[in-house]
Amino acid sequence: MEGVDHLAPERNRAQFNVDEMKIVWAGSRHTFDVSDRMARLVASDPVFRKDNRAMLSRKELFKNTLGKAAHAWKRIIELRLSEEEASEMRFYVDEPAFTDLHWGMFVPAIKGQGTEEQQQKWLPLAYKMQIIGCYAQTELGHGSNVQGLETTATFDPESDEFVIHSPTLTSSKWWPGGLGKVSTHAVVYARLITEGQEHGVHGFIVQLRSLDDHMPLPGITVGDIGMKFGTGAYNTMDNGVLRFDNVRIPRNQMLMRVMRVTREGKCVQSNVPRQLIYGTMVYVRQTIVSDASSALSRAVCIATRYSAVRRQFGPQDGGVETQVIDYKTQQSRLFPLLASAYAFRFVGEWLKWLYLDVTQRLQANDFSTLPEAHACTAGLKSLTTSATADAIEECRKLCGGHGYLSSSGLPELFAVYVPACTYEGDNVVLLLQVARFLMKTVSQLGSGKKPVGTTAYMARAEDLLQSRCSVQKAEDWLKPSVILEAFEARAVRMCVACAQSLSKFQNPEEGFLELSADLVEAAIAHCQLIVVSKFIEKLQQDIPGKGVKQQLQILCYIYALNLLHKHLGDFLSTGCIIPKQASLANDHLRSLYSKVRPNAIALVDAFNYTDHFLGSVLGRYDGNVYPKLYEEAWKDPLNDSVVPDGYQEYIRPMLKQQLRNARL
Amino acid sequence: MEGVDHLAPERNRAQFNVDEMKIVWAGSRHTFDVSDRMARLVASDPVFRKDNRAMLSRKELFKNTLGKAAHAWKRIIELRLSEEEASEMRFYVDEPAFTDLHWGMFVPAIKGQGTEEQQQKWLPLAYKMQIIGCYAQTELGHGSNVQGLETTATFDPESDEFVIHSPTLTSSKWWPGGLGKVSTHAVVYARLITEGQEHGVHGFIVQLRSLDDHMPLPGITVGDIGMKFGTGAYNTMDNGVLRFDNVRIPRNQMLMRVMRVTREGKCVQSNVPRQLIYGTMVYVRQTIVSDASSALSRAVCIATRYSAVRRQFGPQDGGVETQVIDYKTQQSRLFPLLASAYAFRFVGEWLKWLYLDVTQRLQANDFSTLPEAHACTAGLKSLTTSATADAIEECRKLCGGHGYLSSSGLPELFAVYVPACTYEGDNVVLLLQVARFLMKTVSQLGSGKKPVGTTAYMARAEDLLQSRCSVQKAEDWLKPSVILEAFEARAVRMCVACAQSLSKFQNPEEGFLELSADLVEAAIAHCQLIVVSKFIEKLQQDIPGKGVKQQLQILCYIYALNLLHKHLGDFLSTGCIIPKQASLANDHLRSLYSKVRPNAIALVDAFNYTDHFLGSVLGRYDGNVYPKLYEEAWKDPLNDSVVPDGYQEYIRPMLKQQLRNARL
Repeated sequence: MEGVDHLAPERNRAQFNVDEMKIVWAGSRHTFDVSDRMARLVASDPVFRKDNRAMLSRKELFKNTLGKAAHAWKRIIELRLSEEEASEMRFYVDEPAFTDLHWGMFVPAIKGQGTEEQQQKWLPLAYKMQIIGCYAQTELGHGSNVQGLETTATFDPESDEFVIHSPTLTSSKWWPGGLGKVSTHAVVYARLITEGQEHGVHGFIVQLRSLDDHMPLPGITVGDIGMKFGTGAYNTMDNGVLRFDNVRIPRNQMLMRVMRVTREGKCVQSNVPRQLIYGTMVYVRQTIVSDASSALSRAVCIATRYSAVRRQFGPQDGGVETQVIDYKTQQSRLFPLLASAYAFRFVGEWLKWLYLDVTQRLQANDFSTLPEAHACTAGLKSLTTSATADAIEECRKLCGGHGYLSSSGLPELFAVYVPACTYEGDNVVLLLQVARFLMKTVSQLGSGKKPVGTTAYMARAEDLLQSRCSVQKAEDWLKPSVILEAFEARAVRMCVACAQSLSKFQNPEEGFLELSADLVEAAIAHCQLIVVSKFIEKLQQDIPGKGVKQQLQILCYIYALNLLHKHLGDFLSTGCIIPKQASLANDHLRSLYSKVRPNAIALVDAFNYTDHFLGSVLGRYDGNVYPKLYEEAWKDPLNDSVVPDGYQEYIRPMLKQQLRNARL
Repeated sequence: MEGVDHLAPERNRAQFNVDEMKIVWAGSRHTFDVSDRMARLVASDPVFRKDNRAMLSRKELFKNTLGKAAHAWKRIIELRLSEEEASEMRFYVDEPAFTDLHWGMFVPAIKGQGTEEQQQKWLPLAYKMQIIGCYAQTELGHGSNVQGLETTATFDPESDEFVIHSPTLTSSKWWPGGLGKVSTHAVVYARLITEGQEHGVHGFIVQLRSLDDHMPLPGITVGDIGMKFGTGAYNTMDNGVLRFDNVRIPRNQMLMRVMRVTREGKCVQSNVPRQLIYGTMVYVRQTIVSDASSALSRAVCIATRYSAVRRQFGPQDGGVETQVIDYKTQQSRLFPLLASAYAFRFVGEWLKWLYLDVTQRLQANDFSTLPEAHACTAGLKSLTTSATADAIEECRKLCGGHGYLSSSGLPELFAVYVPACTYEGDNVVLLLQVARFLMKTVSQLGSGKKPVGTTAYMARAEDLLQSRCSVQKAEDWLKPSVILEAFEARAVRMCVACAQSLSKFQNPEEGFLELSADLVEAAIAHCQLIVVSKFIEKLQQDIPGKGVKQQLQILCYIYALNLLHKHLGDFLSTGCIIPKQASLANDHLRSLYSKVRPNAIALVDAFNYTDHFLGSVLGRYDGNVYPKLYEEAWKDPLNDSVVPDGYQEYIRPMLKQQLRNARL
């Protein structure tokens, strides 16, 4: 049956132009072209195969990854790929590796925090990969709280050097990717000490290994921190541990763009605004949101295709069983995730604009929108990564038992994705930052200070505290303004309620701690509003292609109304809507699911994923699942022999009742 | 610092008698003694070490498991352990193996479905492990829908044999544990065909492998289905694939307790009631609920201890950072899970009673409570396994980044646990069965047929539809009757609302499909009520020990009020409570968390888990986390050499700009 498209009948049912939707998903025709080209390039190169990852030992797996990284770099040079193309290529290679940190953290840290001079010295080396760098911030005992880092960098004016030192076990650098086995250099964050005084945490470029034989330099203890979640997943990465025993580096290896230490050991602030780091944060978080939509869409693609292939139970009169995608329970779990994938894609796209906007303002010394932009990206990072992690596991469950097989691709997708909930800011800690900003915004409402950006709606707080939802029949929920107002009212009311509760505390900090669980919920309400509103804004744009906009509209309603259903307690307890309206929304949701049903396969085809990238037998484009599952099974090393290793020692003595005398 | 108890200050704060709580958790002093003895026996035996599982290849891992199973069996014989002790011992060995299926499915299937004669023939062989059996039901294309199985067992009257055959690829048996590499026999479920007629699905004892050399018998193709989620987890199990090419077995190997096939090929029903299978179902599901409380309590124990060890951020005036367990965000996520562990323990205990009750009634030919018992166990299986799977991952996140390390124990606990949501009935399919039963119960309310058991409250539907929650101040939520009524009212109202919506459909089956998402929510409401009410009932018993009952009361309120908060939309939309009352419940929840805080460590100590069983550096009894994490890291095979394998081929050419010529 090779070559037969078992999902063709599903594809023929689509009521929209899939090729046009692919462009919408990619963001532009150019992005689509690059992405499509790179995906095929990777998929067709046998070096990049990844279907055997689950069977490799840690050492084999790691060596394999090194080989892929080297091959990718070779191809990038040979084909003279642009930066954009190279980055897409690494994305489709789809295997965490030291290069992620080299390009994603080490280079940007030098660019963002290094002086012109430092950039000129280090960037060419990094660009050519003559050195390989990582980003050594977190420590064994210190994650979220950067100010709590214990590693010290003490200036020694005699030798004009910094002495980098790990004073305690808990100060060991711990987690940095690429550190354990590969990086020759690191940007190390340490407490600056000069003239006997502490001056906060700063970054220092430290060489870790010899460029001749890769041995750690004197005073440096470095290694891998061991196995992590999953079989392949992040075990392809050498997350590392690093200890310094009074390691000396020249003074000019402190990253000094914002503050420098003089020859005499004095700290001097530069005129570069400190706020620059927020620009970088906005950038990094935008990529995380964009990655969330990628991971989520991948899981949804697998679950949707397999839901169309898989049949279970069915008409009482016998005959062929029902496709599980036709069950409302399946639809009510799956389609909101499909809608979320699109929602996160569009909010990610908007974040790219926000980053450009913030950058331009920074260049013009306009810092007015920074706190809002910072809170907004923190919240969206938290919201999208938490939702995506949960959604991948839900997609796995939606595939029934077979989702538990490695060959479904979903276990590894989950294992490789979940760290996103923790890195670059723990999701709950980030929501508390959002809440803090929201409380400040609420407290300034009376002062005439106008809330900006994604908090602009709060200027209408008075109205929103009074407003009543106008829905009287199910179709009324199809007005974007109605949905928007309900979400705005909910967010404002939850924020104001928190602010009122807070005001009852004498010590506001104590109040904030005591009410933090409620504050987190208010922050979530605000962030969900952002995603809903950006989806609605997207739909106000001109979107070409037969039926494309209509499909997106349906998904937008599903995204919003499903959230409303899930968080009904918020909407009802704040009086934003009444039970009857909730019930109408729920009824309407069901009819929206029916509208998605015939388009479901085409809507996941629009992600344009190759079978190589998906890495899932269940999610195969052609739907030819069962023969391939059967075929895959026999490749497991356990099937190398019919009688397993261990039979003679352990099974046979048991069966023959000779265990008593056996030496085990 | 070896030997120092870093958590001693936490333990000293406990306001109750931990030893007495251990007895309550275990269920009885006898159970505690057996469990404690077996846990220590396993923990002290080096053969049972499991800290190296994540580093073994599939083959090594599997052989290791065979060794442990053989050793366990040897010890069971040597120490003449009772059935109870042997079962506890296997539990603490804590590694999925073929023995689970042999003892948990193969033996019970013969006991439940075999005739006296068949039991006399097969059970002694199985008890001595002279044969090893598995349970071959699910097929590649057929999971939940047992009636859709394709394997055939055709009676051949000439030879007095059944011909077992796999007519299609999708009819391959797929998933049975122990099948792939170990089992010599299987109970195979197949469609019985005799005299050209189909007679439903029945069980057949089929020998798979030679007892001499373990080779598959003629006509049998058998193997392992490959890697599954996680590193260790279920990869220690040989879940298998099995195909039959017209394999012949004697007629007397069909399990004929309920129906037999005569020498002539006629089907004859016995006088044994078919309902017997429900008794087995109640039994199996009771063990699953009990396992849920074990897995959940394990995860909670790890997260709670590490939350007391870990410090992050803290007082603005510097000084030592705050224990993360002191943060309300941490408490509001962790303590409801701690409460759930106890709640599931008690409902599991009650299910043991229910099983006895059902068994006694069956013996007396009283089937009146069976449908209710069946629905109730289906619902509780679904509720507790879904909640536990989510909770393990939540506990992992509550440990921050380090929860992602294999040495935290949480990734593997998750990977090994999640199949419980799918096996023995997919959780959503089970909830739909519950919903079906609830709809039937509602429809019969007017008929005078009194609802029994866990649905008894529905007899008061009329009152519950009218009732108003009496809470006026936060403390009013401390009345068990108030909580119970709120949960009863919510469940009844959701059920009645569904029934009313259903009645609008001409075709009830269509209505059921269309409204299935709502029906699932109603079923969940009913099941949550059961757990809450059994927790409350437990507290009406005499519970000795200083402070023990008080602690359990607090946990009971947390369990209930947290559910109320999470499902607030249900309670508000059905008018069971009003927003003000919800807000009071929420306030009260915070004060309950403060009451748990000083007892948290002692409450997880009460589970009496050894460090061996927990298998978590983060959850160590002595709290000595960081030195041990550091120590563990160096054991990874990647750290065997300072310069990694692959450096010469891949890293050096990159650094030396010689990649272009390299052969990769």
